[in-house]
Amino acid sequence: MKGSTPLGPGREFDRIRGVLRGASGAGEGVQVPPGDDATVLDPDLVISTDLAVEGIHFRLDWLDPHEAGARAVGAAVSDLAAMGARLVGVLASVALPEGDLWAPRGAAFMAGIRDRVEALGGQLLGGDLTRSPSHLLVDVVAVGRTGRPLLRSGARPGDELWVTGHLGGAATAVRLWGAGRSVPASLRLRYIRPEPRLAEAIWLVEEAGARAGLDLSDGLAGDASHLAAASGVGVVLEASTLPLEPHPEVTLEEALHGGDDFEILVALPPGAAVDGRAEAFHRRFELPLTRVGVVRKGSGVSLLEPGHHSPVPLTRGGWDHFR
Amino acid sequence: MKGSTPLGPGREFDRIRGVLRGASGAGEGVQVPPGDDATVLDPDLVISTDLAVEGIHFRLDWLDPHEAGARAVGAAVSDLAAMGARLVGVLASVALPEGDLWAPRGAAFMAGIRDRVEALGGQLLGGDLTRSPSHLLVDVVAVGRTGRPLLRSGARPGDELWVTGHLGGAATAVRLWGAGRSVPASLRLRYIRPEPRLAEAIWLVEEAGARAGLDLSDGLAGDASHLAAASGVGVVLEASTLPLEPHPEVTLEEALHGGDDFEILVALPPGAAVDGRAEAFHRRFELPLTRVGVVRKGSGVSLLEPGHHSPVPLTRGGWDHFR
Repeated sequence: MKGSTPLGPGREFDRIRGVLRGASGAGEGVQVPPGDDATVLDPDLVISTDLAVEGIHFRLDWLDPHEAGARAVGAAVSDLAAMGARLVGVLASVALPEGDLWAPRGAAFMAGIRDRVEALGGQLLGGDLTRSPSHLLVDVVAVGRTGRPLLRSGARPGDELWVTGHLGGAATAVRLWGAGRSVPASLRLRYIRPEPRLAEAIWLVEEAGARAGLDLSDGLAGDASHLAAASGVGVVLEASTLPLEPHPEVTLEEALHGGDDFEILVALPPGAAVDGRAEAFHRRFELPLTRVGVVRKGSGVSLLEPGHHSPVPLTRGGWDHFR
Repeated sequence: MKGSTPLGPGREFDRIRGVLRGASGAGEGVQVPPGDDATVLDPDLVISTDLAVEGIHFRLDWLDPHEAGARAVGAAVSDLAAMGARLVGVLASVALPEGDLWAPRGAAFMAGIRDRVEALGGQLLGGDLTRSPSHLLVDVVAVGRTGRPLLRSGARPGDELWVTGHLGGAATAVRLWGAGRSVPASLRLRYIRPEPRLAEAIWLVEEAGARAGLDLSDGLAGDASHLAAASGVGVVLEASTLPLEPHPEVTLEEALHGGDDFEILVALPPGAAVDGRAEAFHRRFELPLTRVGVVRKGSGVSLLEPGHHSPVPLTRGGWDHFR
């Protein structure tokens, strides 16, 4: 379940989504109720769903059906990483449009789903298959386990914000496609093959003492605001430190506001850079872990730009499918 | 996950669905792998998904958005009844089409989902919400628990087949709508408000010793063939005994082949009629429990028609969305 902006038509959208978030609260057998990246059921089961709809979340002129199926799984499983969970498997509810291409496309889409689940070490646990009146779509139900869920709440003033990997690559690919330009292979890969940071998130909880965290699906600024709101704190991001995807087309704007990075943002107790935690992460995963800001009292997300002495509030700019 | 026919375009469809059914088999932490009505994860968690798509599974000129949301939940939760599980809750992944009506329709659809879950004693555990390029749809993930799953396998020659409630009402409503005729309220209700037989199925397992069972979503004949195949037995249905929905429009054809009844079909050890089990069910649930056939050696489903001495094989005639 991803975030949104409350602006414009999003306000009505937020009201409808509010039903998902708050209807029942925590009942019997529910450890973590809806509202975080996933729900946790006793004793340790983590469950989340993620819809991927052709024309909204992917386009078949940008990726082929096998890639589209695989991408939907990667994006959905990222919600488990966001909770510090390991993957058990997924259920996939697929709707296939009629027409000459339904059978080969459907078979490739389903194979992409299965192949990606298995490559991630999980099992295809079931699902549903039906006809669609128009577009190809899948709802991926990601199922995992954790004895120690990583929540959006728990960050404290003084904590440091760290992010895995690089930012902005997927959004840059989308921008280039949208402008009719060719998309470099490295950026295309960032869009078509999101990497759920499952082992990385578990390490950040167990070895680095992460207090709060989530995956970056809406963009760093938007997702940091979710963490800030859930933790009851403010966040300052430092523009000069953001680990942009290493390609000249990638901009700060895309690293801040572009969606679909699926990296992990965590609040760590201070000192990870000096006591070697960050370096140990890098050695272990061959992936950067970068300090991108700090947690402070207050609320909301601010940005400290190079050459400035005080941060400026960022409007929420996360990805909203209804915007 | 519902059944299908292998005929015509269904053959290709079956091949794609085969990926869902058999990809990973039973792995670590999986008690009942895909292929039954739901998957069971250790220690007792039952999970199933069910897509409901406007134009395929429901039409907004037949029911309003609140009813459509409620119906999707009832149909999905029936998969838990099919496993003899109690309901914990559901996750709902909803896609809303754009246009003037999206906000009121979306709000009503979501309220229908929430209201039905809560009326069934469950919780709304999360989900996803996104835009749809065309039709309204929801994937309902039903989550339940059982220490004693009711499987499709386990029926033995000599067992008796029993069915809860009445058959054919929903299919008759659909036929009348399709013919442009008015639909009597009792039949409309059978279509728009499926009743998952949760407590009934648990009783049939715990008090009546049900050996195998499933819910009737594809039609009695088709679902009996699923039970027969999974149990490695044959089934004889007795036409004169089928409990037709009490309305003169309802035909034997609809009771046999009509989908969407969501009653429970179980194989009971012989003698339920004479030892009072069936009567006790009726007293407890104010719902008929009817003996509709027997299990024998062999395979497939046959029908014994009134005035005939030997049963004739039934072609599989379950509901297939690709037919």
